[in-house]
Amino acid sequence: MTSRLRSHLHEIIFEADTRSGKIFDIALMILIVASVVAVMLESVEKVRFAYGNYLRIAEWTFTVLFTIEYILRLCSVRQPLRYAVSFFGLIDLLAVVPSYLSFFFSGAQSLIVIRALRLLRVFRVLKLTRFVGEASMLYASLRASVRKITIFLGTVLALAVIVGAAMYLIEGEKNGFSSIPQSVYWAIVTLTTVGYGDVAPQTIPGKMLASLVMIMGYGIIAVPTGIVTVEMVQHRSSWFGTKACPSCSSEGHDADARFCKNCGAALDEEE
Amino acid sequence: MTSRLRSHLHEIIFEADTRSGKIFDIALMILIVASVVAVMLESVEKVRFAYGNYLRIAEWTFTVLFTIEYILRLCSVRQPLRYAVSFFGLIDLLAVVPSYLSFFFSGAQSLIVIRALRLLRVFRVLKLTRFVGEASMLYASLRASVRKITIFLGTVLALAVIVGAAMYLIEGEKNGFSSIPQSVYWAIVTLTTVGYGDVAPQTIPGKMLASLVMIMGYGIIAVPTGIVTVEMVQHRSSWFGTKACPSCSSEGHDADARFCKNCGAALDEEE
Amino acid sequence: MTSRLRSHLHEIIFEADTRSGKIFDIALMILIVASVVAVMLESVEKVRFAYGNYLRIAEWTFTVLFTIEYILRLCSVRQPLRYAVSFFGLIDLLAVVPSYLSFFFSGAQSLIVIRALRLLRVFRVLKLTRFVGEASMLYASLRASVRKITIFLGTVLALAVIVGAAMYLIEGEKNGFSSIPQSVYWAIVTLTTVGYGDVAPQTIPGKMLASLVMIMGYGIIAVPTGIVTVEMVQHRSSWFGTKACPSCSSEGHDADARFCKNCGAALDEEE
Amino acid sequence: MTSRLRSHLHEIIFEADTRSGKIFDIALMILIVASVVAVMLESVEKVRFAYGNYLRIAEWTFTVLFTIEYILRLCSVRQPLRYAVSFFGLIDLLAVVPSYLSFFFSGAQSLIVIRALRLLRVFRVLKLTRFVGEASMLYASLRASVRKITIFLGTVLALAVIVGAAMYLIEGEKNGFSSIPQSVYWAIVTLTTVGYGDVAPQTIPGKMLASLVMIMGYGIIAVPTGIVTVEMVQHRSSWFGTKACPSCSSEGHDADARFCKNCGAALDEEE
Repeated sequence: MTSRLRSHLHEIIFEADTRSGKIFDIALMILIVASVVAVMLESVEKVRFAYGNYLRIAEWTFTVLFTIEYILRLCSVRQPLRYAVSFFGLIDLLAVVPSYLSFFFSGAQSLIVIRALRLLRVFRVLKLTRFVGEASMLYASLRASVRKITIFLGTVLALAVIVGAAMYLIEGEKNGFSSIPQSVYWAIVTLTTVGYGDVAPQTIPGKMLASLVMIMGYGIIAVPTGIVTVEMVQHRSSWFGTKACPSCSSEGHDADARFCKNCGAALDEEE
Repeated sequence: MTSRLRSHLHEIIFEADTRSGKIFDIALMILIVASVVAVMLESVEKVRFAYGNYLRIAEWTFTVLFTIEYILRLCSVRQPLRYAVSFFGLIDLLAVVPSYLSFFFSGAQSLIVIRALRLLRVFRVLKLTRFVGEASMLYASLRASVRKITIFLGTVLALAVIVGAAMYLIEGEKNGFSSIPQSVYWAIVTLTTVGYGDVAPQTIPGKMLASLVMIMGYGIIAVPTGIVTVEMVQHRSSWFGTKACPSCSSEGHDADARFCKNCGAALDEEE
Repeated sequence: MTSRLRSHLHEIIFEADTRSGKIFDIALMILIVASVVAVMLESVEKVRFAYGNYLRIAEWTFTVLFTIEYILRLCSVRQPLRYAVSFFGLIDLLAVVPSYLSFFFSGAQSLIVIRALRLLRVFRVLKLTRFVGEASMLYASLRASVRKITIFLGTVLALAVIVGAAMYLIEGEKNGFSSIPQSVYWAIVTLTTVGYGDVAPQTIPGKMLASLVMIMGYGIIAVPTGIVTVEMVQHRSSWFGTKACPSCSSEGHDADARFCKNCGAALDEEE
Repeated sequence: MTSRLRSHLHEIIFEADTRSGKIFDIALMILIVASVVAVMLESVEKVRFAYGNYLRIAEWTFTVLFTIEYILRLCSVRQPLRYAVSFFGLIDLLAVVPSYLSFFFSGAQSLIVIRALRLLRVFRVLKLTRFVGEASMLYASLRASVRKITIFLGTVLALAVIVGAAMYLIEGEKNGFSSIPQSVYWAIVTLTTVGYGDVAPQTIPGKMLASLVMIMGYGIIAVPTGIVTVEMVQHRSSWFGTKACPSCSSEGHDADARFCKNCGAALDEEE
């Protein structure tokens, strides 16, 4: 394959700014969504009985198309090995392998749901859209909060272990709290306010502790919200594109401001 | 119908600022709520047996009144077709058609619940009230956040598909996760902290993944809250109307602004 | 009763600033909590069988004490009728009447739980504590948000009616959605992320609509949070007692600021 | 034990800044997590049958190690009694006592889950990590909000008692609301949006009251979130450390500050 053809292929497959690159990305996205929908439908027993053959044909069509795409990706990059071991390279490989494995092992077929992970490529396609600004800033805010949220979730987890152990002692195995891990599972279900109800306290002290845990969960659900909000307020200027005064360099003016709120100089004269 | 009568009718039916327009709107609202309550009551078996006849009379009264209102609306506008194909025009038509269809088809009667959509007119009536400021600004904030919330919900949906597929593999059909769509439904029920409990993980690895999903849902519920809050803080000046410029009368300056952002005149000289 | 005695009584019973007034309020609060606990315990069958007599004695003691208190309140105010028809006057009366009514009607006894409403007096006692600042400002923020939250909850309710009607058509009576009011109840349980699971969709389209409703509920739960947060940020200066510059009158300085961040003049010279 | 050895031991066991102190703390943390995992696994019946002997050996190893650690802690401090009666001193003692008690009493063994409380030491280890800043400021924000959140939770609790009493009267014992405490438990489960569904209203008025409670819970969940967020915004400068004064080196100035709030010197002259 000549270097020119390769660079042309690379532009189509990996770039998203050119016209042909955009078309390729959107077509690929539609294929991925269609293949995921096909896998989802095949898992429904009724649909499998009625349209099993069509779904199997569709699956093999998708597998062949994705295999061709995978080979083209390998060809178009300068260092194929580096792509092959990258996150998306592995996902792309895992998306086609189970179909071929099903020739040899009967169970391998069910691994095809890994294809759903290809949905993560949707974020790459989003780069194409006008959402790009929102997306990148949303993830910047989240990334900046990750450390604070991690420490917070660590505390919640430690709390869940302690509450779960206490609940195991109080309720005991006869009321569904059959082991400490089971009780910790219940504590997490309760603290996060999900509340399935498959395990629920039966005794009076158990209900009192559960009430306390719920009210605590109610109070601490505020913490991650507060963290993310403050982080977003902090990134507010980059989120909303405020202006800087050319005269006194003050920032934080509203988007519709025409004069500096600090020194009164005119803003945006050449706009 | 003369042009003068039509414009007078238009004023009563479509305008909300005049006295007669206000009375018409409030009377219509009461009629809509009454008709929705009647439809709701008729769906309760006991009430239908006891008061079925009265409800049927009420229903036909409402149908006739709404038909007259629909005809008057058509008459009072200059371009009846344009109103007829507008959102509210279609809703108004759909609110009366099922009753008439029930002469020919027995099942059509149940479509009458579409009338509930007329409740959306409540927002028009709100224009009458002092809530107008709050309402318009609340929706301005929401509209501004729609793009960010859309991208966020897209991520949540992709996550639900991946988690659902994983849960289908882990738990299998015997534990209620009968298909991938069913598992995705479970993932959404869990991520949104609703937690019906009609489907719940039974195996140890399933419970571990569920715990992880719950804690993740706990963490990411903070994101839309943060987005809306920041958007509201951004619209804060319009929400709370802090200072007015003594020179150009423009409003919406920040609390710490010293010069008008519109004309550059000094604010608050005598403060 | 002489005017002097009445004014002294009034000071003890209604004022909370004097020493005797404080003691009376705290003693009353303990009595109310004790009587509520007694009513709660009596409703538990096991406790009623074991300690029924003691609880009945306690109940009559509380009734007599509250009756004396009610008579003293009537005596100590200048316009007894005005107190008698006020909110707390009625509550105070309703707290003692059921016990006396139980002489004549056997069922009246159970109305004694109305006494729980006296717990609302706890807010008056809070005036005594150091919480006063937090409480009054918390409620100021809430009161300012009431209009925005009302309009928001109205929208949620209209949405619940429409979703409930749609779900009644989709799922039908055989799947637990036995009437539209029942479906609206389900919609509220789902939108608020409570999710009992006593009613849950069984059909594919029902589950799809439910997923949509859950994700919507996830998105709109952000709105009241945003409203209250912004309102609190707005009240921030009164919440946290910031300082004003004596030289340039700018506000919003941090609590530990010693110089104006705007003009550099010294703050708080006489502090 | 010589004073020098004791001070060396103290440095290793209690300090976290030196190399040996860090190693000790991390090793201890791993031991605590391992012992908690062992206790959790032993409570699972299947694991206990299969690996009971190994777990019992592990448990005694941890007990002996923690006993040695406890004795060393007692030796290394100048006032052993003061450590012994401190919070962590008692936890450290309670973590080893149940194992020894199990020689004399058969049930004492189950108290070993108290060891989970040692997990709280994780916060001390966090001091080692780069999380220190986030952690201390997160807890500063929470501590500052504790009073406001307390008063808020008090209101929620009073509300839960009143709603629970009303629900007991409406639904009665036959529908699962068997006593007022049980109804209060239901009210807390509902207000916090946990919603197990083990108790749920069956009658029409009960469902109406429940709907009202859910919508209220939806509205008031916003309050603690708002409180924590505002408190965090207030601590924002310390969280995000914006500007430092070139004259007095003080930090924590607002983003829009032009003069040092501490010494009055001009900030950011060369910006």
